[in-house]
Amino acid sequence: MGHKFKKEISDFFFEYDTPRMVLVRDKKVGLTFRLIQFGVLCYIVGWVFLYEKGYQAVDDIISSVSVKMKGIAITNVAEMGTEIWDVADYVFPPQGDSSFVVMTNFIITPEQQMANCSELPDEAPCKTDDDCKALSSRKTQEGENSDPSLSTSGILTGNCLNETKSCEVYAWCPVENDHVIPKPPLLMQAENFTLFIKNSISFPRHKVNRQNLVETVTSSYLKTCTYHKDTHPLCPVFRLGYIVEQTGQKFIDIALKGGTIGIVIDWNCDLDWSLKHCKPTYRFHALHDENSVSQGFNFRHARYYKEDGIRKRTLFKVFGIRFDILVNGQGGKFDIIPTMTTIGSGIGIFGVATVVCDLMLLHVLPKRNYYKEKKFKYAKSEKKTIGKEEEESPYENNFQYENSQSSGVPVTAVPS
Amino acid sequence: MGHKFKKEISDFFFEYDTPRMVLVRDKKVGLTFRLIQFGVLCYIVGWVFLYEKGYQAVDDIISSVSVKMKGIAITNVAEMGTEIWDVADYVFPPQGDSSFVVMTNFIITPEQQMANCSELPDEAPCKTDDDCKALSSRKTQEGENSDPSLSTSGILTGNCLNETKSCEVYAWCPVENDHVIPKPPLLMQAENFTLFIKNSISFPRHKVNRQNLVETVTSSYLKTCTYHKDTHPLCPVFRLGYIVEQTGQKFIDIALKGGTIGIVIDWNCDLDWSLKHCKPTYRFHALHDENSVSQGFNFRHARYYKEDGIRKRTLFKVFGIRFDILVNGQGGKFDIIPTMTTIGSGIGIFGVATVVCDLMLLHVLPKRNYYKEKKFKYAKSEKKTIGKEEEESPYENNFQYENSQSSGVPVTAVPS
Amino acid sequence: MGHKFKKEISDFFFEYDTPRMVLVRDKKVGLTFRLIQFGVLCYIVGWVFLYEKGYQAVDDIISSVSVKMKGIAITNVAEMGTEIWDVADYVFPPQGDSSFVVMTNFIITPEQQMANCSELPDEAPCKTDDDCKALSSRKTQEGENSDPSLSTSGILTGNCLNETKSCEVYAWCPVENDHVIPKPPLLMQAENFTLFIKNSISFPRHKVNRQNLVETVTSSYLKTCTYHKDTHPLCPVFRLGYIVEQTGQKFIDIALKGGTIGIVIDWNCDLDWSLKHCKPTYRFHALHDENSVSQGFNFRHARYYKEDGIRKRTLFKVFGIRFDILVNGQGGKFDIIPTMTTIGSGIGIFGVATVVCDLMLLHVLPKRNYYKEKKFKYAKSEKKTIGKEEEESPYENNFQYENSQSSGVPVTAVPS
Repeated sequence: MGHKFKKEISDFFFEYDTPRMVLVRDKKVGLTFRLIQFGVLCYIVGWVFLYEKGYQAVDDIISSVSVKMKGIAITNVAEMGTEIWDVADYVFPPQGDSSFVVMTNFIITPEQQMANCSELPDEAPCKTDDDCKALSSRKTQEGENSDPSLSTSGILTGNCLNETKSCEVYAWCPVENDHVIPKPPLLMQAENFTLFIKNSISFPRHKVNRQNLVETVTSSYLKTCTYHKDTHPLCPVFRLGYIVEQTGQKFIDIALKGGTIGIVIDWNCDLDWSLKHCKPTYRFHALHDENSVSQGFNFRHARYYKEDGIRKRTLFKVFGIRFDILVNGQGGKFDIIPTMTTIGSGIGIFGVATVVCDLMLLHVLPKRNYYKEKKFKYAKSEKKTIGKEEEESPYENNFQYENSQSSGVPVTAVPS
Repeated sequence: MGHKFKKEISDFFFEYDTPRMVLVRDKKVGLTFRLIQFGVLCYIVGWVFLYEKGYQAVDDIISSVSVKMKGIAITNVAEMGTEIWDVADYVFPPQGDSSFVVMTNFIITPEQQMANCSELPDEAPCKTDDDCKALSSRKTQEGENSDPSLSTSGILTGNCLNETKSCEVYAWCPVENDHVIPKPPLLMQAENFTLFIKNSISFPRHKVNRQNLVETVTSSYLKTCTYHKDTHPLCPVFRLGYIVEQTGQKFIDIALKGGTIGIVIDWNCDLDWSLKHCKPTYRFHALHDENSVSQGFNFRHARYYKEDGIRKRTLFKVFGIRFDILVNGQGGKFDIIPTMTTIGSGIGIFGVATVVCDLMLLHVLPKRNYYKEKKFKYAKSEKKTIGKEEEESPYENNFQYENSQSSGVPVTAVPS
Repeated sequence: MGHKFKKEISDFFFEYDTPRMVLVRDKKVGLTFRLIQFGVLCYIVGWVFLYEKGYQAVDDIISSVSVKMKGIAITNVAEMGTEIWDVADYVFPPQGDSSFVVMTNFIITPEQQMANCSELPDEAPCKTDDDCKALSSRKTQEGENSDPSLSTSGILTGNCLNETKSCEVYAWCPVENDHVIPKPPLLMQAENFTLFIKNSISFPRHKVNRQNLVETVTSSYLKTCTYHKDTHPLCPVFRLGYIVEQTGQKFIDIALKGGTIGIVIDWNCDLDWSLKHCKPTYRFHALHDENSVSQGFNFRHARYYKEDGIRKRTLFKVFGIRFDILVNGQGGKFDIIPTMTTIGSGIGIFGVATVVCDLMLLHVLPKRNYYKEKKFKYAKSEKKTIGKEEEESPYENNFQYENSQSSGVPVTAVPS
């Protein structure tokens, strides 16, 4: 028994079984076979491996962005006089986040303080005090903010003011009037502001770190360059006017009511090559398009102070361009697993050639019956005893193929 | 030689080899084979292709979010009097980032200025000046911030103040006392504030851009709608109270000490269909649950001003709901590579049917030895000369199978 | 016909065809075959399944981070006197975003107001008014911000001021002079500030939520612990000095001119195990390295106020450490599809063993011709009639192999 087991082990290791094949010399089938194989080979080698780099493991990017603006603007509005706006004044937030707003227009409501004053006539029109009381009780019933059309700036006192024909409110007074947006936009000079983007990325699985200040962006180049998609594609200093132009918009339009622009930094790096070939590309696109339901971008912002012991604020309704810097990319590097998976599933697809050619051979060609006979051998299972060798083709004598194109499985011969 | 090479080329292109098969008519094996094949087919076509859309290349999302709040609240605290809070006052930061805080409660410490004053009694209690000097030197030795329990609001002067029985500090005075949190929360009206979310997404590889203001969200609909998960699932205007309710919390609880809520916007788009079917869904969940170690959400924030030539600030300890808008999703589109990979590995799995059935055939069935004989042909390798054809079954005469179920490899017959 | 169709159906379900094999007893080929099979098996089971967890579907992370700083610093600059800095003063933005700046140094320009004053001599040097007029007209021609070297703080009036030998500007006056950076940095005590990070993550497809306050971080532990990579790797309270040290920098260097540090929270979770094993790890790295083109990190920030009816601001040029908290990770969980794909493509790779061994068998071994004869059977296709069985080896008599190692395809025998 031990001897037998030893024999089996030796058989296991020293024997090799390989399928027996039928060689068919048929031009149609042969060519089809080779063509399909060639097609699959081209697909796997050319498309999957070379073009799509199927041998690489791709890693997602993690990224950090900081920005810095430069430029000054001058405005002249009645409420403020001639005013110079520098970077501390027009960028929100000031610390250079990847998502920030550059003010291009604003409505200022200075010297607001807690008091009673008249609401805007179109928000709360009235003829008598009763109108205001009715409005007030309606708001109380439905909840302060239930109906968006009932959005007064403060609490209705119930009085109707004669001069303005509007209800009196307790609010930050005077109430902001944002019906007239300054035109042309007050900070049109923002077109010439420059934006400097610093972007550090990392592909954590491949342990690669990289910055958008690549090797060719030297200190001296950085001081003088301005981004242009063709002539200076790697310069990380951008003129706002150029960015807006690239999104297909006019600066004066977007500056008036604000807008949102995405700056996409694409890093598609083949890390099998030298790291210096891993370079960013910049794309710009308007995130909320013109024919959108909700146009423009604005927010309210206040500066608080105290004057003569009274707490006051200067309210700004800021219209501006909101920039969102979105970093996108993948780093591919050779890895054994995707390579083997691609090869393995490629070998599977090779099997398609055999399946197609077998179908041709056994069901389409005129000599299909002959080929069937060559390919298949019949093993009886009904007979209980293992009799004499059946190798000599069961089909030869008891030939029963008649119209087997539809099923292709030879009917079994009843052994005599 | 040239002729021979030509011949080989023609053989290569015009010949086709296909495996020779044994046809076994056995109900058990036949059915098993077809059942496994059917199972694999169902799995590949039904599950992988149709349900999981294995024929699609998925692209990650890049996204930009901006928000806008609406609503006013009224508070009445001793330090401020009756105060109206509008959007410029209660949202941090003001510019509508995807992560923002809505103030729901606060502790105000007005008129702080640099001076000497008493620390809170429980932070730095003392009976004599020596206690304070001891505390001060202990802090100096261990480093200003080394021991978190030694967190005074400023620099210890070394004096003990009799009235409060606490040490004197040089700090922003008076020192903030945050032991009593206003209850009920001061800005309970925040429950009715509304939040408008604008979300632009893009699937860069598929070159698809999309907004959460989809086709059915018209300008007029937007003005009146409020999100409800069943009746208005696409309206991008949310009542804060509804959001909190959906996370399973009570607004009054979260408003008191603050909290963090994630608003997840899911975009799972099948880009093989019309883009108008690509719609967002909104989910809300509390990010820091109730039984957590560190409860609530608060931060300190100051308004700086100058009064009578003295720099002062109003310090707010802000309790609020921090909203994090997280955009998640994938865009799938038909692509040849995942399709072929799925098919290729599917064909590989088909091979399992053959392996299982061969195992049955050669090791389980009673007639296994007969089938083995049919399937395998013995090629001698010890004999040096290529002798007569061995096709007539080496097993027939020198039959040596006895108990081969364990190994299944036929023992080689010693040719006579 | 119905009977025949029925028969075909029964054949389809009850018949099984399996390839006929040649058994070759050759130690070299047998061992090669088993070795390759063993290698592929090890690769698939050991590497792909166990090490790389190829049976898991991986889900990307979505995450929310909030932070809280603690600590005070004291400065003494001429413009402000002795000043205590607490968390409301030195963190930007105050609300605890995942990307924030801790001020470590600053240049203060107090009491700025709109007025005429002298520009810094090196920005706009002049001898006579004509120099300033020339500069002004040059700027007008080239656009206000066209040449970055022409960056004055305001609008040139065209006058040359004698005392400073520089042009007069209308700007926020006095103009900021940032040539001298305070050394040592004013807020060196920031080294001992602590940072508390709260991080909530979620793997949306696997429906798993998790926080960095894991089970072992109890309330009492949290109050006393400070992160240390070896002794307290899960404590979410970080000393800034320790973080900077871990990035390989000196705190005094980074505090002087600012810098950017990435805090990477890695969540690599095997969700097949208990959730309590899903723990974060923290890594720190400098995002803009020392030898970079653009060093340091700073931004400008203003506090606005009103004094004697005049709008004023205090301008800060803030140097600080910008922290970017980047959350990275993947959650893997058993899933049938990746498992089947891995198995399927693995089976495909198994085919490599057969290909290699067949190549050996048919082209390398001395007895290759004998094996070829055994493996291949010739099917005539020129002959129109299906003649007598060709099983008895066409090669045996009409042997035509001579030097077939190069092509390996047997030349077809012309049937006699």
